[in-house]
This record gives sequence, structure tokens and C-alpha cells, in this order.
Amino acid sequence: MNYPVSETIVAPATTPGTGAISIIRLSGSECFSIADAVVRLRRGTVSGSEGYTIHYGSVFAPDGSLLDDVLVSVFRAPHSYSGEDSVEISCHASSFIVDAIVRLLLEAGARFAEPGEFTKRAFMNGKMDLAQAEAVADVISSTTSASHRISMQQLRGGFSSELSSLREELIKMASLLELELDFSEEEVEFASRDALVDLIERTRAHVDKLADSFRLGNVIKNGVPVAIAGAVNAGKSTLLNALVGDDRAIVSSVEGTTRDTIEETVNLGGILFRFIDTAGIRATSEEVERLGIDRTFRKISEASVVLGVVDSTASPEQISERCKALLELCDLDAQHLIFVLNKIDLLDEMGVNNLVTSLNEIVLSSGNKCSYVLLSAKAQNGVSELKSMLEKSQSSLLHQNADATFVTNIRHYDALVKASKSLSSALSAIGQNLPSDLVAEDLRSAISSINLILGTDLLSGQSISPETILHDIFRNHCIGK
Amino acid sequence: MNYPVSETIVAPATTPGTGAISIIRLSGSECFSIADAVVRLRRGTVSGSEGYTIHYGSVFAPDGSLLDDVLVSVFRAPHSYSGEDSVEISCHASSFIVDAIVRLLLEAGARFAEPGEFTKRAFMNGKMDLAQAEAVADVISSTTSASHRISMQQLRGGFSSELSSLREELIKMASLLELELDFSEEEVEFASRDALVDLIERTRAHVDKLADSFRLGNVIKNGVPVAIAGAVNAGKSTLLNALVGDDRAIVSSVEGTTRDTIEETVNLGGILFRFIDTAGIRATSEEVERLGIDRTFRKISEASVVLGVVDSTASPEQISERCKALLELCDLDAQHLIFVLNKIDLLDEMGVNNLVTSLNEIVLSSGNKCSYVLLSAKAQNGVSELKSMLEKSQSSLLHQNADATFVTNIRHYDALVKASKSLSSALSAIGQNLPSDLVAEDLRSAISSINLILGTDLLSGQSISPETILHDIFRNHCIGK
Repeated sequence: MNYPVSETIVAPATTPGTGAISIIRLSGSECFSIADAVVRLRRGTVSGSEGYTIHYGSVFAPDGSLLDDVLVSVFRAPHSYSGEDSVEISCHASSFIVDAIVRLLLEAGARFAEPGEFTKRAFMNGKMDLAQAEAVADVISSTTSASHRISMQQLRGGFSSELSSLREELIKMASLLELELDFSEEEVEFASRDALVDLIERTRAHVDKLADSFRLGNVIKNGVPVAIAGAVNAGKSTLLNALVGDDRAIVSSVEGTTRDTIEETVNLGGILFRFIDTAGIRATSEEVERLGIDRTFRKISEASVVLGVVDSTASPEQISERCKALLELCDLDAQHLIFVLNKIDLLDEMGVNNLVTSLNEIVLSSGNKCSYVLLSAKAQNGVSELKSMLEKSQSSLLHQNADATFVTNIRHYDALVKASKSLSSALSAIGQNLPSDLVAEDLRSAISSINLILGTDLLSGQSISPETILHDIFRNHCIGK
Repeated sequence: MNYPVSETIVAPATTPGTGAISIIRLSGSECFSIADAVVRLRRGTVSGSEGYTIHYGSVFAPDGSLLDDVLVSVFRAPHSYSGEDSVEISCHASSFIVDAIVRLLLEAGARFAEPGEFTKRAFMNGKMDLAQAEAVADVISSTTSASHRISMQQLRGGFSSELSSLREELIKMASLLELELDFSEEEVEFASRDALVDLIERTRAHVDKLADSFRLGNVIKNGVPVAIAGAVNAGKSTLLNALVGDDRAIVSSVEGTTRDTIEETVNLGGILFRFIDTAGIRATSEEVERLGIDRTFRKISEASVVLGVVDSTASPEQISERCKALLELCDLDAQHLIFVLNKIDLLDEMGVNNLVTSLNEIVLSSGNKCSYVLLSAKAQNGVSELKSMLEKSQSSLLHQNADATFVTNIRHYDALVKASKSLSSALSAIGQNLPSDLVAEDLRSAISSINLILGTDLLSGQSISPETILHDIFRNHCIGK
């Protein structure tokens, strides 16, 4: 691995705002001399310091006045985050001071870093592959233990090593096939066709398994989609507020893709749930409401869990009718349906008993494929029961797959789907007894797809990702990372 | 200096939110062993590491899964911010990770730090005096170079060393007087009364000068108050928007003390200006508006600069009348009055010429104690001229006092006023030929006031501030500092 001469980049690495400490990060060939030009150490110089040491120093403004006393951490290539010579300057967490020091570093010859540029350099210097570099942004934005675990596994290279071994298998097969081509006049067949078909099939199954994990990985990363459905005035919005209300601190409001759906995420037992309030369902001739309801149907079909909110003060016939309508909307084999019998505080004991009897019947008739909860969103009764039902419905799912690799990135998903297609094409080429070079081409194409995820060629160790892909990947990182 | 056994405290030291790096800070007797219980270093242990070194390590969750790879910085007492053994853990800037690591450190025996507790320990361990410790919060919240310079001077001990030399003088005098008391039967007079009076007078002048700097220091810290005054519909709000508009990024909205005044601060040339929009002035019998206008008068009298906004499309008589009314409201010896002739875009060339002639007359008649600017707040004409007039009006003031010490803290101001009173009382005791012990008591009382600012007794080196004062001071610091 070579460490080419690189421009020295600078950026604040900590979140702006009031705090105790802010960190300014420098990386690149000239970072020690640039730091020396700006920070006067109490003893010695940054350039003369060993790696992994900390030094006390002062930064002065151009007019000679003291800007701040700072700590300088020195990292020598390759033992740094970026793999280059690096410096971290720790100062008081004042935007005035941070801005002033960054300005001095720019004047001393550094350039302001692009988003993710420190991580991009780590990738370019072979400190991590592309899938790992992409995981850095995911680790930072993780808000639950489930999403943190997936992104951390990817950052540590779990996903990468799985892909690497797949790639090695494919390269071995492709090499054997190409060896055959060299000896083609002698009609030698190094690779047994049966063994080859078997190997490609197993590899494709592995690729498909990874691609299939995307749906679940995406759910873990972005939240389990929970649609709140039901008739107008059943209390859907109140239920949403009750669900997110006492967790306000860990709730974020996401602007829905449509005007009339609001999404809120809540962390329940380490799993992120994304609640989607939908427009009420009722027969209507008005076009505008019609549109809203079409969206409702789409939202319901996309959800992993459907909360069917039913007004428990309605007549037994109405309740039964509405529950059945909701049952018809859901795919009980793929989705969880939980009936939420709302406004339970308005019923007397007999009313509650009748309701339970009628709901038990409905659940039984569905083959026990749905469940229900009695609740008062307004009085906050039954809300915690509903939460633990939600948690349980998904935690079983997660625990089964605790050690599995999850694909959470759509770029990786696309590449895996392409690889799978190439492998299918190779299999059909073998089936049709097409020449070996066509089979080898399909295998090479599958290898390319996997190379795109890892960002490097196994044999040369060189980066193979075009600059445009790198640009797209790293612009999603934050400045200073 | 002794470093007593102390509870180990922990807190995040960086601002929460998305970023590249977060720092978690530990300080106290057990911090190395607590860090070792939570972080597994790649080589060696935190306890076995030298000060001012950095170590790569990993933090694992209780279930054995990797939480994050971290860097651990080791600081050994007394060479740390707090003066105690300290550790800084640098991890990915994810609140999930930061929370999880802090939780592990708490479980390993640390306690969550109170606001400012790291700085409080620095004070208790003699790393800084109380005035310096108080400056830490000011340094962090500084938003202009002027306020930064004052707080940094205080943090570096400029103010403290000035106070210390004053205190030494007073202690010398008091000691001489007390020596006299010991020999009182022999009627010895060690301290010449004339020399003593001279010394106390000079000291009191110095104390008064510091106390007087409070008004200016406060203005630098909190912003130069600029009242925007004028008749209803003269365009005051539009002017305020024009002044703060293109600086939106560095503008903060402050809820006014009254409902009808809005305050906005803008940094112009390194000086913070606090703009105060006032209710319009007009003759009215309505009680509510009357109240608003009383407030307007008070705001105008408290301002350092008054922007008198006048509608330039009014008749020459009206303009002249309104300018004269504004002139009467201001104290031209203490305040800057700038007439802002607004809506200038609606005048033709002759109108502008007439306006200039009439304004020149008004300025001349005031003895050149006010100035004016032609402006269109709506068309953003003349706004930058007004800004540089504002800047110039105050920068002369600042540059004259560039090296002076400013008092910016009301606690310090109160103590200085008390010290001055004690010195006056000492002088009058000498004038009335009262016994030396009464004079010495006054001097001791002045010394106590100064001790309260510094927080320590010069002779014993012990902290002399009651816990309640310390509590009040440090609760204004942020967590982690």
C-alpha cells in the first residue's frame, strides 16, 4: 500500500453548538507543518512528535491575541483513521473559536474537506473497503441497537468478508474455465460441468439470500412500517399521538411522501417502528378524498404491521363489518394485523364482554392470524400493551437472525440482484451447452458486480469504483468524517 | 497542592447531534480502572499508560457485540484539565453509541457529572481561580471577537492578576495597621497616615475603574443596545429585517422583556449589536398604546445608539418636527443618534436634495452631535452604509480600550462595588481619627470582597467560597465542561 502525496484537508469533526470540547480534524501530507504554522506547542513541534501522543499548545490570532489553548493529537500514517498523517485539534466548543482556527488552517495551506472525505481517503488508502466506508454513515445515524448492530457488523467487515469469499469462489471457477479455453484445441475439460453447475447454484442461492435480506435490513434501518388504518373518526391520530407521545425525546417527525400521511418513528425495545397515519377509509364520491384513500390502500399493502383502529362504541354489526373490511385489506401471511378497539373507556362492563366475545370469534375465523387489543388512546389505557405486542411481533423476527448479515444499502442490493442474474445466465449457458468463454463471461460479470460493492479488485488491490460512484457514496457522509 | 480521592465523574463533552466524532470525558481517582473495565485496548491498559498518550481500543455491549472502536486519551494528574486523572474516549458521533458507552461507564462505577463539574474540580485543584473558571462559560458562548477577547483575557488570568496585586497591597496595609495594634501601648505608628490615605485612594480608584468597566464589558458581552425608534409606519420593522436579514446565519432572536419589543443581535465588524424594535411614537389617548410608548421611552433611554427612523415622503415640516422630537428624547452626550431617512426610493432628485439640506441644518443645530443616513429598507439601499456607521460609532470605543480589563460578570461587579465602599469607609475612619483596628477591619472587608471574586484566600491557598456560591457559578456551565 502506498501513501501518495495528498492535499491536506481540514474540517470540524464535532457537531456545532454549545458543548465543552470541539475537535478540528486535519489529514494529508502537509498536515504536521500546517498545524505547526497555526498552533504553538508548549514543548517541541507537531512535526517532531511521535504518533499517538497529545500536546498542549496555544493558537494566536493574526493580531497576536490568544484565540484558545488547545490539545493537539498526532497520528502518523498509516496509523490513523484516514491512513494518512493526521492531526486532531481539541479546543473550546465555541463556533467563534472553531471558525477562527479553521480559517487559520485554511490560510496555512489546508483545504476545506468535502463531506465524507476523511472516510474516502481511508478507503483510497486501503484502511477499509467501500462497503465498510458506507457503513460509517450508517453507524453514526443508527438510533436503535438493531440498526446499530447491522451497521457495526458491516463496518467491521462482516458483510465484506462474506462477499469476498463468494468472489473468490467465482474467480476460481472463472479461472478454470479460462484455462480450458487456452487448451481448447485439446478438448480438455478441467471443470466438471456437474460440479460447476452445483457450485454456481450454491453461490447464486447465497447471493439471493443476501439480496433477500434487504427488505428486512431496510426495515431495521429505516423502521418497521406500521400503518394505522381505520374508518374516519375511529381515533387514528389520537392513537398515533398516544404511541409516540411519552417518547417525544426519541421521536422524529418525518415529512410523509404524501401530504396526508404523517410518519413518526419510535424506538420500542431496540427496534425502530415507523408509524404511518393514513386517511380514513369510507365510501366517498369526492375525487380528492378518493385519491387519499388510494394512497391509504398502498400504505397498508406496504406495511409490515397494520393497526386496524375500530371505534368500540359502534354497534356490534358495524364493528364486525369494519373488522372484516380490514381483514380483506391485509395479507395475513406476510403482514401482522392488530385490531385496536379504541374508546374502550366509553363502554360499560357488559359492552366490553360482548366486544371481547365478538373479537375472539373474528380472530378465530382468521385462523388465529391476527390479534386485538382493547384500548383508550385518549385515556392512555392499553397503549403499553399495544407497544409490547408490536415489539414482540418483530423481536422474534430479529432474534432469529441475530448473527445473519443484512443488506441495508440499495446500491448493494442492486449489485447483488445483478450478480444473481449473471449467475442465472451462466447456468442457462451451461444448460444449452454454449461455449465455455460465454459462461466465463457471465461469471466475470457477476464478479464485477461484487467488486462494485467492495470497491476494490481482489487481484490488483486497486480501487475500481468510478469517481462518480465514489462521489455519490461519500456526499451522504457528514463534513469532518 | 493535594489531589484528594474523588468520585469519578463522566459526561459527553461534545454537542449531541450528527457529526464525525463524539468525546466522552472521565475524571477522578478511579477513572483509569473504570475505563479499563469498559474499553479493551488493542495493547496494554489505560491504567498502565503514560499521560498524554492515545490508545486504540474497542467497547463491547454486555451481550458481547461490538459497540464501537474508540480512541482513548490518557491524562495523569496534575497534567489534565481538571487537575485529576482523566480519560477522554473518542467514538463515532452517534447518540446511540455515546449513550451506551456512558451507561457502561456508569455501571462500572462512575457518576454522571453535574454541569461545570470538570471546571469546578479544576478550581478545587488549584488549576484556575474562580474568576478564570467563570470565564470558561463566557469563552464558549462568545460570538464576536470583542467578547471572545475579554473572556479569553479573563480565562488566562489577566483580570485575576490585576485583582491579586490589588489584594496584596491591601493585605500589606492591613498587616501594618494590625502590627500597630500589637504595639498600641507604645503609641508606635508604623504606617504614615498620609501615605496610607494616598494608597487607599489609589486602590479605590483602581477598584472603581474596574467596576465602571462593567457597563462597557456588559455591552461587549451582550451586545450594544440599539433602539429603533420613530413614528408609526416609518418602516421600523422593515429596517430591522433589512439590518439582520442578510446575516440570518449569525443572528439570534431574543424574546424581548416586553411583548411588543423584539431584540435581534448581529455581529458587525466583531462587535455585537442588539437591535430593539420599539412601538411607534404618536399622540394617543388609548391606555394600552400609552403603556407601549412608555416602554419605548425607557428602551430609548437605555440604548447606546438610537436609530431615529423618519419617513422621507412626509412633508418637510413633518420631517423637521419628527427629527426635533427624536433629538429631545436622546441624551446626545451619552448616546449616538442616527436619523434614518427611510423610503428614499420614493423621492425624486429634487426631493432628495431638499431632504439633505434640511437634515444638514438639523445636524448642525445639534452641534454635530448626531448624524443621518438616506436609506430604503425595502430596496436595501443604504443599509450597508448604516451598518458601517454603527460599526464606526462603537469600534473607536473598543479600540481605545483594547488592552484594558473589562468586568462582564455581575457577581464580580457587585463584589467590586462592595470593596469600593469598604475602602471609602476606611478613608472616612482615618479622616475622623478613629482607632486603627476599625480602619484595619474596613481593609479586611475589602480584601474579603476581592477574595470572593478569586475564590481563594491568598495566604492559605484554600477555597473560601461557600458551596452555595460555587453551585450558582457552575450550574451555568454546560454538562461535560
